[in-house]
Amino acid sequence: MTEDNNYSSPSIATISRQELRELVRSQLQALLEQDNLSGAKAMLVPVQPADIAEAIEGLPETMQVIAFRLLSKREAIEVYEQLDSSVQQSLCEKFKRQEVIDIVDKMSPDDRAKLFEELPATVVRRLLGQLSPAERQATAQLLGYNSGTAGRIMTPEYISLKEEYTVSQSLERIRSLAHVTETVYSLYVTDTNRHLTGILSLRDLVTSQLNQTISEIMSRDFVCVQTGTDQEEVARIIQRYDFLAIPVVDSEQRLVGIITIDDVLDILEQETTEDIYALGGVQSEGDNYFQVNLFTAARRRVVWLFVLLLTNSVTGGIITAQEDILKKVVALAAFIPLLTGTGGNVGAQSSTVVIRGMNTDEIWKIGPFKVILREAAAGAILGSVLGLLATVWAFLFIVNGNLEVSVTVGVSLLAISILASVAGSSLPFLFRSFGLDPALMSAPFITTAVDVLGVLIYFNLARVILQI
Amino acid sequence: MTEDNNYSSPSIATISRQELRELVRSQLQALLEQDNLSGAKAMLVPVQPADIAEAIEGLPETMQVIAFRLLSKREAIEVYEQLDSSVQQSLCEKFKRQEVIDIVDKMSPDDRAKLFEELPATVVRRLLGQLSPAERQATAQLLGYNSGTAGRIMTPEYISLKEEYTVSQSLERIRSLAHVTETVYSLYVTDTNRHLTGILSLRDLVTSQLNQTISEIMSRDFVCVQTGTDQEEVARIIQRYDFLAIPVVDSEQRLVGIITIDDVLDILEQETTEDIYALGGVQSEGDNYFQVNLFTAARRRVVWLFVLLLTNSVTGGIITAQEDILKKVVALAAFIPLLTGTGGNVGAQSSTVVIRGMNTDEIWKIGPFKVILREAAAGAILGSVLGLLATVWAFLFIVNGNLEVSVTVGVSLLAISILASVAGSSLPFLFRSFGLDPALMSAPFITTAVDVLGVLIYFNLARVILQI
Repeated sequence: MTEDNNYSSPSIATISRQELRELVRSQLQALLEQDNLSGAKAMLVPVQPADIAEAIEGLPETMQVIAFRLLSKREAIEVYEQLDSSVQQSLCEKFKRQEVIDIVDKMSPDDRAKLFEELPATVVRRLLGQLSPAERQATAQLLGYNSGTAGRIMTPEYISLKEEYTVSQSLERIRSLAHVTETVYSLYVTDTNRHLTGILSLRDLVTSQLNQTISEIMSRDFVCVQTGTDQEEVARIIQRYDFLAIPVVDSEQRLVGIITIDDVLDILEQETTEDIYALGGVQSEGDNYFQVNLFTAARRRVVWLFVLLLTNSVTGGIITAQEDILKKVVALAAFIPLLTGTGGNVGAQSSTVVIRGMNTDEIWKIGPFKVILREAAAGAILGSVLGLLATVWAFLFIVNGNLEVSVTVGVSLLAISILASVAGSSLPFLFRSFGLDPALMSAPFITTAVDVLGVLIYFNLARVILQI
Repeated sequence: MTEDNNYSSPSIATISRQELRELVRSQLQALLEQDNLSGAKAMLVPVQPADIAEAIEGLPETMQVIAFRLLSKREAIEVYEQLDSSVQQSLCEKFKRQEVIDIVDKMSPDDRAKLFEELPATVVRRLLGQLSPAERQATAQLLGYNSGTAGRIMTPEYISLKEEYTVSQSLERIRSLAHVTETVYSLYVTDTNRHLTGILSLRDLVTSQLNQTISEIMSRDFVCVQTGTDQEEVARIIQRYDFLAIPVVDSEQRLVGIITIDDVLDILEQETTEDIYALGGVQSEGDNYFQVNLFTAARRRVVWLFVLLLTNSVTGGIITAQEDILKKVVALAAFIPLLTGTGGNVGAQSSTVVIRGMNTDEIWKIGPFKVILREAAAGAILGSVLGLLATVWAFLFIVNGNLEVSVTVGVSLLAISILASVAGSSLPFLFRSFGLDPALMSAPFITTAVDVLGVLIYFNLARVILQI
């Protein structure tokens, strides 16, 4: 491959520039038509930017953007600069074409990440600037930013200033740009290479003297996020510092966009829905549950129910194995829903407060060990109260004076409460330490542990207390 | 009472002003010492504002604020204006005294609302302005705003302008006030009576000509909330309109404060915690679960578990009543946890998506009837899949070829899934229409309905299919 494609090698140096470009174009087109994107990417590596630019222009429309996105960051900026401005414009137009988006949509996120390098800051701004917010959302995949990252939600509509501007020059610039920018309240200072060097607010500006320079009043200590930063992390930062907006930079600290607080509200709502769905045993994929079709809705719920089926078949197996004792004391069966139900609920309570505490960062002030210990103690208190109550209740109303069965139920409830509290509070920490989402993973395991162990405890206690 | 207290009646017109004030003071103090606040309130009605002001000054410190808060809105403003500014200042100081807060804390919210009328806008601003945010939070009850309302979270630190100001005058005013105000980006225009007549943003200001007047550029179409508006509603409005701040007015449309978007983030987080806790069966009271003591934590969880105990004693009773069939086919007991567990979880899934949909307003595009129908259909799909699977599973592994029991389990699962979906999706709507919080109320009722009906369906089906 390398030898065939090395167009700058002496052996083919005699062909004309025009022929070379045609050769690049036809080979590129052939590879793209075969959907061999990695081949196309490799093929372009040794070709000069000017030749790539020409070759891209000769491709069918849908392929132009794809070819452009296969360039490395360094190449992309050079190729983009080689294009004349009408072609730059038309390239941007193509970024929003549905066919192009569809092609990229079909790639797996891994493939996309492998093929599409970060775009240069100038190109990102130029591209994003020409898209409406809806179009930007749709083409964000094409830009190589993964779903749920800062790059995916940032806007290029911000006002940048230079350090040497005076306050009055800056106010003039704001006046002229105010109608095309998302916010005028957060202002960003960049150097000639688009590196972010400082930030200031419109408040700083209007409270300064008109002849002061930006470098005198801007703040050099600022918080920014990378294009790849998780959107939930972005939301937390804005919330923690009470920012109105936060700048987004690429890996070279160049400013590519900003994220404003009103977007953060939407992110928090979406993340909250995901957490609540996860706790309720429903998978969410960021879309509206009420607008997906019925089978998709059912599919999002069936996984969790399968897990439950499996768990219950284990529990069912244990109960079946206790047939001898059940035959002798049928009354024992009456308390099985109470025991598994209480266990499940105590466990759910513990995992709810722990998972929510993780998401609001409140829990880290205390630490896992103390939290689990505390939950165990709460479980013991709850278990004692419920156990005592259940014993009296069972004795008086359900088993009509059978003390042994009543006590078995009460003591089992105490043991199950403690067990469920410990499982409910410790499993989220365990899953988190493995890098798994605690909200998604904990519930099935807690139910399994509590149900299986709970039923075992119950029947073994019954054997001891009833002496069967 | 009325006759005794009618100090302006001719019979006592001969006493000196000084004697009258001393009489008012001593009687007021006596009533306050007896904690007879409504008596004190009634007593003050016929007294002249100037006399009340004098009488209040003569009271012990703790009582001064309480007496002041008993005045009607009209009286309060007059009395406040009669006080000289050092006394106004000292009254404000007293508003943050712990003893005073404790007294008010002990009143029930109803009593407070009955006794404490809304404070006049000028007094609110003066009072709140002298308190730190933490003090403001602590004294908000004293100001008569209920927990969870706009009045409780608003700040008086905003910039108000007059319609006749020019842009350059306004910018000058902003420059001089910027260091004491929470935001300079949202600006509020009031008339001489503090009525809110328009709003504008700093963006509008910096993009206008310096000699334009505020009335030319301000917007007369604006959204504002009342002091009594629920904080969650405030958050939704700010989120829907992408506001940075929203003005809060009293019942006479006078501006008393603003709420900024960063406060809304905190509200949403708090409301989310409440919803998640409610779904997880834990009561929340706005504080940090991990910082309350162990018994408080246990108490917040025990209510829900009591409900469960009650539910399960009904279920247990039903199972006991089926002793005859259980004795004959002990294997039936093995599937009780599966049936109640699946029912509970399908119900929880439906109520989770419905309650979350209510909170994000997504659900209203579809309407209750269609949502419930859709959930019933989803329940039927899920129930068919799970029922079939459970039948095969039970047949092969649990009951070793007992087809009747296997089919009973499968058909019961189908029926329970539909039942649970309908209960889970309809009960939140029902509770909401009664003005109850669906997140808090639904789960216990769903569990009860599903468990009791589920077990009844199961045993009755068993009787039919097994012909016992």
